[in-house]
Amino acid sequence: MKHTYEYPRAALTVDCVVFGFDAAELQVLLIERGISPFKGQWALPGGFVRVDETLDEAARRELLEETGLEKLFLEQLYTFSSVNRDPRERVISVAYYALTKPTYHRTQATTDAADAQWFSVRHIPALAFDHADILATALQRLRGKLRYEPIGFELLPPKFTLSHLQQLYEAVLGTELDKRNFRKKVLSYDLLLPLDETHREGAHRPAQLFRFDPVRYEKLKKKGFHFEL
Amino acid sequence: MKHTYEYPRAALTVDCVVFGFDAAELQVLLIERGISPFKGQWALPGGFVRVDETLDEAARRELLEETGLEKLFLEQLYTFSSVNRDPRERVISVAYYALTKPTYHRTQATTDAADAQWFSVRHIPALAFDHADILATALQRLRGKLRYEPIGFELLPPKFTLSHLQQLYEAVLGTELDKRNFRKKVLSYDLLLPLDETHREGAHRPAQLFRFDPVRYEKLKKKGFHFEL
Repeated sequence: MKHTYEYPRAALTVDCVVFGFDAAELQVLLIERGISPFKGQWALPGGFVRVDETLDEAARRELLEETGLEKLFLEQLYTFSSVNRDPRERVISVAYYALTKPTYHRTQATTDAADAQWFSVRHIPALAFDHADILATALQRLRGKLRYEPIGFELLPPKFTLSHLQQLYEAVLGTELDKRNFRKKVLSYDLLLPLDETHREGAHRPAQLFRFDPVRYEKLKKKGFHFEL
Repeated sequence: MKHTYEYPRAALTVDCVVFGFDAAELQVLLIERGISPFKGQWALPGGFVRVDETLDEAARRELLEETGLEKLFLEQLYTFSSVNRDPRERVISVAYYALTKPTYHRTQATTDAADAQWFSVRHIPALAFDHADILATALQRLRGKLRYEPIGFELLPPKFTLSHLQQLYEAVLGTELDKRNFRKKVLSYDLLLPLDETHREGAHRPAQLFRFDPVRYEKLKKKGFHFEL
């Protein structure tokens, strides 16, 4: 069946930047393209938007189809519209970024993707289309948001030590942070619940485990509280 | 001429939330729709994206055509994709927000718009489509950005007093600010150049005029400086 319109129309895609955090490295999930254009090259997971789904639905569907990931934190990033960004024809892409906990780090390539793999953001291969621009925009957004919203917890396991949290901030912001100041500030918000458990790593002393309290955060936010780290 | 595709495609529009600041009120520019659907109702300026232009170009073109405004601060906001947001057919809209100085506050309706008019954000009429959602999203973005980036100056005339600046912050954030703290903080960044001029209002003492120094801001930003007010 053919679909006919009075004026030419751009095709619409979604592309997803999925961030993970593992072994003190911020990582991005890339798929190897199984079809042309850019066949065999690494790219962000994504694909064409169906006419009967919202953009959020399209992003979640493509992520599940191409990487097996679901139920993760997902937010719209920016819509990319350079006229020649796709060699096939005019394609406008709505980019999303997603944050996933290490427990979800299994990857499974399906449909159009030949392979799916995590890469450190410090060693990204050449990417198809304008995906390097999209990734750069997502990194900038993540760095900005991390300072003003408690979204970092989406990248950590449900229970974490203050060292884990600091490692995450250092990996994303790309800078070292003063341990004492960081702990003081993060505990001052009263958003971390100390658990009756500790975590032991190597020969180190056992460290207190915490979990983030999202209910308390939403309450504070409604009162005009501003998170900042 | 007809245009035919293998799969159905959504139509693509841009919609612009234009903020102005006048007489201590944050204002939004709305147009009265001259054509159906929602003929005679107020709406955000905007229209269909052409296949050979970027989204930024489409937003600037539509603003000029419908309101006569040009060369203003313009940034992409969010892409809205509810399946039934347009009664005609599937239309996805990329929303922008723009900030304009009071000197550009002439309005001239043209093309599809029957009239263009400024409204206080505190008294917005019923809007066409999902434009109330778009406006709410833009307001939220403006409030967030104002605190962490010096974009408020885009809404002020080139020369302003510290009272003008505080009025702007109070109008956008919808809250009163302590005069002494506000002045101390805003001057601490060394981003305002005192001018050899004063401004007199009514029976008040003449007040020092300032201008914002964007070059210095860019320099500081590159060094990792974070603006916050």
